[in-house]
Amino acid sequence: MSNAPVRGFQTCEFAGRLAAAQGLMQAQGLAGMLLTTEAELRYFSGFQSLFWQSPARPWFLFLPSQGAPVAVIPEIGAALMRGTWVEDIRTWAAPCPEDEGISLLTDLLAPYAQSGARVGMLKGPETILRMPLGDYERLLAGLPDLEIVDATAIVRQLRMVKSEAEIEKLAHICAIGSRSFAKMPQLVHEGLPLDDLFREFRREALAQGADDVPYLVGGAAQGGYVDVISPPSSRGLQAGDIVMLDTGATWDGYFCDFDRNFAIGRAEDLPRRAYDTLWRATEAGLLAAKPGARCCDVFHAMQSVIVEMDSSGGEVGRLGHGLGMQLTEWPSHAAFDTTEIVENMVLTLEPSLSYGDGRIMVHEENIVIRATGPELLTTRAAPELPVL
Amino acid sequence: MSNAPVRGFQTCEFAGRLAAAQGLMQAQGLAGMLLTTEAELRYFSGFQSLFWQSPARPWFLFLPSQGAPVAVIPEIGAALMRGTWVEDIRTWAAPCPEDEGISLLTDLLAPYAQSGARVGMLKGPETILRMPLGDYERLLAGLPDLEIVDATAIVRQLRMVKSEAEIEKLAHICAIGSRSFAKMPQLVHEGLPLDDLFREFRREALAQGADDVPYLVGGAAQGGYVDVISPPSSRGLQAGDIVMLDTGATWDGYFCDFDRNFAIGRAEDLPRRAYDTLWRATEAGLLAAKPGARCCDVFHAMQSVIVEMDSSGGEVGRLGHGLGMQLTEWPSHAAFDTTEIVENMVLTLEPSLSYGDGRIMVHEENIVIRATGPELLTTRAAPELPVL
Repeated sequence: MSNAPVRGFQTCEFAGRLAAAQGLMQAQGLAGMLLTTEAELRYFSGFQSLFWQSPARPWFLFLPSQGAPVAVIPEIGAALMRGTWVEDIRTWAAPCPEDEGISLLTDLLAPYAQSGARVGMLKGPETILRMPLGDYERLLAGLPDLEIVDATAIVRQLRMVKSEAEIEKLAHICAIGSRSFAKMPQLVHEGLPLDDLFREFRREALAQGADDVPYLVGGAAQGGYVDVISPPSSRGLQAGDIVMLDTGATWDGYFCDFDRNFAIGRAEDLPRRAYDTLWRATEAGLLAAKPGARCCDVFHAMQSVIVEMDSSGGEVGRLGHGLGMQLTEWPSHAAFDTTEIVENMVLTLEPSLSYGDGRIMVHEENIVIRATGPELLTTRAAPELPVL
Repeated sequence: MSNAPVRGFQTCEFAGRLAAAQGLMQAQGLAGMLLTTEAELRYFSGFQSLFWQSPARPWFLFLPSQGAPVAVIPEIGAALMRGTWVEDIRTWAAPCPEDEGISLLTDLLAPYAQSGARVGMLKGPETILRMPLGDYERLLAGLPDLEIVDATAIVRQLRMVKSEAEIEKLAHICAIGSRSFAKMPQLVHEGLPLDDLFREFRREALAQGADDVPYLVGGAAQGGYVDVISPPSSRGLQAGDIVMLDTGATWDGYFCDFDRNFAIGRAEDLPRRAYDTLWRATEAGLLAAKPGARCCDVFHAMQSVIVEMDSSGGEVGRLGHGLGMQLTEWPSHAAFDTTEIVENMVLTLEPSLSYGDGRIMVHEENIVIRATGPELLTTRAAPELPVL
C-alpha cells in the first residue's frame, strides 16, 4: 500500500504523551499511574500486539509523575517491549497463577505506599480492570497504606485529542473503509446470504489495505432491520430489504467506525424518509461540531432533526463518540456529556432512529475537528438511500 | 459453506450449563454468580455480539443458584438478548455514567445481601473485571452486607469440558485453519512483504469459511524469528527466512489457535533441527494427553524432548492451553497446573524452544480428548520443515 502512512510513532510522540500525563498527575497530586489495559499501554509505550486477546496474562505499565515509565510484563512480551521507547522492563515467567506479577508490582509501589503517596488507576466510565480482581485485592492487601485514586480524567483528556500522526492513521483507515463501501454494488446481489456478504466485505476491506476488520455488524430485513449489534444470519438478501453494514476496520491499531445503508432492488417510502432524516441529522451534527461547542450541543443538534420521525429519544444512548485506538472512545454525543469539543478530536456522528414496527436505522460518519470546524474522514454517505 | 455445522446451540444446552453451574453453586454454598465478561455471558445466555469491542457499556448476567438467569444489560442489546433463552432482561439507557446499571444490580442483589448470602464473581487466574472498578466499588459500598467470593473454579470446571456441539464448531474452524495453511505455497513468494502475507492469509481463511481472523501474529527472519506476538513488518520475505504464522480464526464464536512454520527457498540445519525437535515434542504430548493424565504430565512429556535442544525451560511460560470461545482458556500445560485431563477437553499442544542467537520456534496443534486419547482437530504439521 504505497499511500500508507508510516507505521508506529516517533519516540518524541511518546515522550510528549508521558510529559503531558506527568503534568496532569503533578497538578492533581498523583505520584504515578498504574495502567492495565491494552489501549493505555499502547498509548504510552507503543507496545502493540494482538496477544491481548489471550486472557491468560496481565500486563502493567507504571507511569511515575517524574521519571521514566516502568513496564511490568510477562517475559513472552519482553522482546516486543524492548523495541519500544520503554527501557525499564521487569518481567516474570507468566502464566504463574501463584504470583502473576504481583510481587513485582508490590516492590515497585512499596515506596509510594510508604510515603503516603496517591497512585492513579482507571476506575471511571468506559474503563475496565484488566487483571484478576483477586490479584488486585491481594496487591492492595499487601500495601495497606497505598492510596489508589481514579485517574480516568487524566487519560481521557489526553487520549481524546489526537496528534497529527494519529489523525493520519485514522484518515487512512477511514479512506480504506470508504473505498470498501464503494465496492458494495459489486459485492451485493439478491439471494446472497448475509453472512457471505459480511465475509466478502471483510475480504474487500483487507484488499483495500485494512490490517484487520475486527468489528463488522449489521442487519438486513424487509423494509428495515431491527437490531444493530447482531452477528449476520445466513438468510439470503431479498428485494425490498434494507441492509446495513457497520464496520470497525483497523490500520496500525487505529479504527474507523462507520456504517452504510442500502436498499436491495427497491425501497419503500418509510426507510427512504428515515434515511433522509438521518442524513440531515448528520448535516446538523456537522454544523454543530466546532471547537468550543459541547458534545451535548452536537447531540441536541442531531436530535432536533431526528424528532421529525422519532420522538422517543432512542435506545442507543448516544449519537456518536470518540474514535481512535478503540472502536468507541470518550467523549459521547449525549445529553449528559458536556465535554468541550476541541481541535484534533476525532469523533463519530451517529444519529439513529426507530420507525415503523420496531425497525431501527443508523447512519454514521467519522470526522476530525479542525480550527474552522469538522473535516470528514469518511466519504460522505449518498444523500438518498442507495438502491442496489 | 454447505459442510458447516448449525450455528448457535439448542436451549437444552444452555439449560444444562445453568443446571451444572447451579449444582456447583449449591455444593459450594453460593446463592448466585454475577458475571461481567463476554465469554461467560455467551456461555450461559447465548448472547453473541462483536459489540463487546466497545468499552462504553458494561453487561451483566446473574445466575441464581436456583431459578432463571437475569440479564442486566444496556437497552441497545435488548433485542439481541430477547432472541436467547434468557427471559428476565432488565435494561438501562446506556451509556449513563451516573448509573451504569448499578442501581439495577443493587435492586437485584439487595435480597442476597440482606440474607447474608454469598455471591460469586470471577476473581481468579485468567479473568478480568469487565466493568469500571469505581462502579464495582460503588456496588459494594451500597450493599455492605454482600459477601462476594471467587467463583472462578466453578466456571473453569464447566467451560474446560466441551459439549459435542462445541466440539463440532471447534473442529470446523480448525479444519478451516488447516485448509488455509495448505494454501501457503500459493500465497508465499520471495519479496512478499510480511504484512501483505498476513493480509492474504486472512483473506484466504475468510474464503475457506472463517467468520473472522481476530488473531494473526508471526514473524519472519533469516534462520528464525525472535518474537512470536508481534504485528507483521513490511519487510519482504527472503530466501533463508523462517516464517511462522499463528492464527486464531473463528467460526460461530469458537477459535482455532495454531501455527505453522515454513522456510523460504532453503533452510539451514539449525531451524530444521528445531522444527524436528518440536515436532517430536508434540508427538510426546499426543501420547501423554489422555484422560487421567494431568496437564503437568503433558508439559513434562513435551519438555523432555525440548531439552534436547534447549534446556532453558522457555520463556513462554507454558506449552499449550485450553481452547474454545477464547483464543486461550484454562487449563495450562505447565509445571504448576495439576488439572486432570478429561474427555471432551479441547486443548492446544504448543511446544516452543529457543535456539541460536535468541531465535524462537513455536509449533502448535489443536486436539480434543476422547476416551482413548487425543484426536487431532488440526491437520498434523508436516514432519519436516516445509521449504516453499
